[in-house]
Amino acid sequence: MPKNSNMAVPGFRLGAVSAGIRHEGRLDLGLIMAERPCPAAGIFTRNRIKAPSVILNKRRLRNGLAQAVLVNSGNANACVGPSGMADAMLCTRVLAVATGINPGRVLMSSTGVIGEPLPADRIVKAIPGLAEAARADGLDDFARAIITTDTGPKTAFRKITVSGKKVSIAGAAKGAGMIMPNLATMLAFIITDAELEPAALSGFLAGAAEDSFNALTVDGDTSTSDTVLLLASGASGARVSAQGEGAKKFRAALDDLCLEIARMIAADGEGATKMFMVSVEGAASRAEADRVARKVANSPLVKTAFHAGDPNWGRVMMAVGSAGAAVAPERVEIDFEPASGRPVPVVRAGAIAPGYSEERAATVLSGTDFTVRIRLGRGKHGRTIYTCDLSADYIRINADYRS
Amino acid sequence: MPKNSNMAVPGFRLGAVSAGIRHEGRLDLGLIMAERPCPAAGIFTRNRIKAPSVILNKRRLRNGLAQAVLVNSGNANACVGPSGMADAMLCTRVLAVATGINPGRVLMSSTGVIGEPLPADRIVKAIPGLAEAARADGLDDFARAIITTDTGPKTAFRKITVSGKKVSIAGAAKGAGMIMPNLATMLAFIITDAELEPAALSGFLAGAAEDSFNALTVDGDTSTSDTVLLLASGASGARVSAQGEGAKKFRAALDDLCLEIARMIAADGEGATKMFMVSVEGAASRAEADRVARKVANSPLVKTAFHAGDPNWGRVMMAVGSAGAAVAPERVEIDFEPASGRPVPVVRAGAIAPGYSEERAATVLSGTDFTVRIRLGRGKHGRTIYTCDLSADYIRINADYRS
Repeated sequence: MPKNSNMAVPGFRLGAVSAGIRHEGRLDLGLIMAERPCPAAGIFTRNRIKAPSVILNKRRLRNGLAQAVLVNSGNANACVGPSGMADAMLCTRVLAVATGINPGRVLMSSTGVIGEPLPADRIVKAIPGLAEAARADGLDDFARAIITTDTGPKTAFRKITVSGKKVSIAGAAKGAGMIMPNLATMLAFIITDAELEPAALSGFLAGAAEDSFNALTVDGDTSTSDTVLLLASGASGARVSAQGEGAKKFRAALDDLCLEIARMIAADGEGATKMFMVSVEGAASRAEADRVARKVANSPLVKTAFHAGDPNWGRVMMAVGSAGAAVAPERVEIDFEPASGRPVPVVRAGAIAPGYSEERAATVLSGTDFTVRIRLGRGKHGRTIYTCDLSADYIRINADYRS
Repeated sequence: MPKNSNMAVPGFRLGAVSAGIRHEGRLDLGLIMAERPCPAAGIFTRNRIKAPSVILNKRRLRNGLAQAVLVNSGNANACVGPSGMADAMLCTRVLAVATGINPGRVLMSSTGVIGEPLPADRIVKAIPGLAEAARADGLDDFARAIITTDTGPKTAFRKITVSGKKVSIAGAAKGAGMIMPNLATMLAFIITDAELEPAALSGFLAGAAEDSFNALTVDGDTSTSDTVLLLASGASGARVSAQGEGAKKFRAALDDLCLEIARMIAADGEGATKMFMVSVEGAASRAEADRVARKVANSPLVKTAFHAGDPNWGRVMMAVGSAGAAVAPERVEIDFEPASGRPVPVVRAGAIAPGYSEERAATVLSGTDFTVRIRLGRGKHGRTIYTCDLSADYIRINADYRS
């Protein structure tokens, strides 16, 4: 990803400080602040056990407006009993006071350990400095403050022209583990200066998420805190409605930015050394394609074989067959495709492809970005899922996460 | 498990040889042979992609009789196209000729790498010696021949008295990876000298499997080859019908033996350092209890935390909430229970239990056999699932399995 020297989005200021939530001296509290209340939309974890901040955000977004987003890493403020909601309310209220924003327009996300009380006092103490620190080009600092086991900050930026006016879209995200959307401790915050109706904004976000954040899995686990927010300041003066030429351009740019972020999250899955896509075609329904693709993408045996660069396609077949779809083995075809170059036929008619070259297949898997394409021969539906390999480092990271 | 010096089951001979299927000089071909055709029952993988041997066994068991079981490790003979069935037919036919058994009464199981042609010629060559090697006390050799990445052979033995006559039940199994029943490359072969009708036999086996082999998961993956077979020679002369006192005793002994084997498989999951049970109570249905228990048992984040002995119960809550059941977080209760001694209350009302002791919880997890008990407060149904932790060795084993 090319480094964007100027990732400012007119109408927003961002910042970060170190509040000492879990570790001293690292950025762990971030802020996005708009000049005025602006159209906002969110999508949230489907885990039945939701962090208080998720519940708070859903409630506050009912009228489609927001003006600030407070994010802390180091503590998920989840499964802590009634104090969780009280702490989220307190932190957002203190931020509201410090910034003069209506508390009903302040959203919050928390990521980190589940089940430990949020050190709200440290956040409260850090908020005045945080409000001071916010500035137009603060995206990178913000992105650093929200990560946990990520190996680095994740940002993406797009610039388009709508009705002759420059429109910016910027995003910052954290991922790493507990990533199986619908969604996962995945947080993504996207800001734009396009001028959008809340309803149109929701539609754009839902559409973009479906093939990016919701097509992403690291380990099949789903967090209690997953959140994607999109805020539109309107500062560009470029009006984008739900339909039309501007909508088309905006949707394409947003889709593309969300996919870039999702791929970054997959590639930076805990302990991951490579990312890969599982693309299922010829399924009887989209749900079936999704089920098969996820089963393959989440199979520890597939993930470990690919980690070793071993084209052990039998494990892919095993996963295809165990996804609960009425697959006819003799119709299954599998290709391994490099990021660029020719696909390698691996399975035809449910068995090894004629002329199969293990060496060529292994070469594909030695890359850090490839696709496993699976054709079921049952219908016309497809689905692509983004994921990563499974390495011994995943174990080390997760066995040691709290220590 | 106490070592049984005499694990002979009257009416059966067992044996093993080295056929050099994958590695030279290790036992890789095993045989169970009955003196005459005897009632037999089987349960098989629910993977839609089934190894030819599974299809063959299902067909040959239709009349409820079998006389021999040929098992090879080192190659699964799965996903190899039409040659797979031809090779299975060939091997069983050659065994039939060598032993004078009707080929329709010979069953076969293959375990190992998927997608590589079975070296049937090596098996054919080894069969005469294998038939010679079979003897009454050959269970242990047989058990050694069928394992792959298992750290050791798995056998179990029960002796009961029915109508004043001694009845033996013996089992040999292999497990290790790709273990999520319904079922998993789990093979288990059980022989008894009880005298049983085929229909009664099937009922006993299905019942015993439900709470043992089908309650077992190592990694959530399901093999193409899972097989559990039960053969009854009748040599004891003790008749066991589907009902009555004998049935009760036989069922109890078989259930217990299957559970012992299943626990051995869980404890010897690839790279496992400890086994644990996830016991869900208070679910609205048995299916719901099963779903929640499996989600927790298969969560890589839960498994890695437990590997480290870290009572990171937030991850358990996360998994409970993401199982697709309509869980009410504020009703969830979790205990960590040592194999013996008092349970440690961990979660009450969806949050940390009053008086929770992290030290005591960690002590439970430092054991190699414990239970995570989860009460959902939604109904009366429950389910216990057996599983193991996830260590870096799982990765090493599976990344290197073919090399």
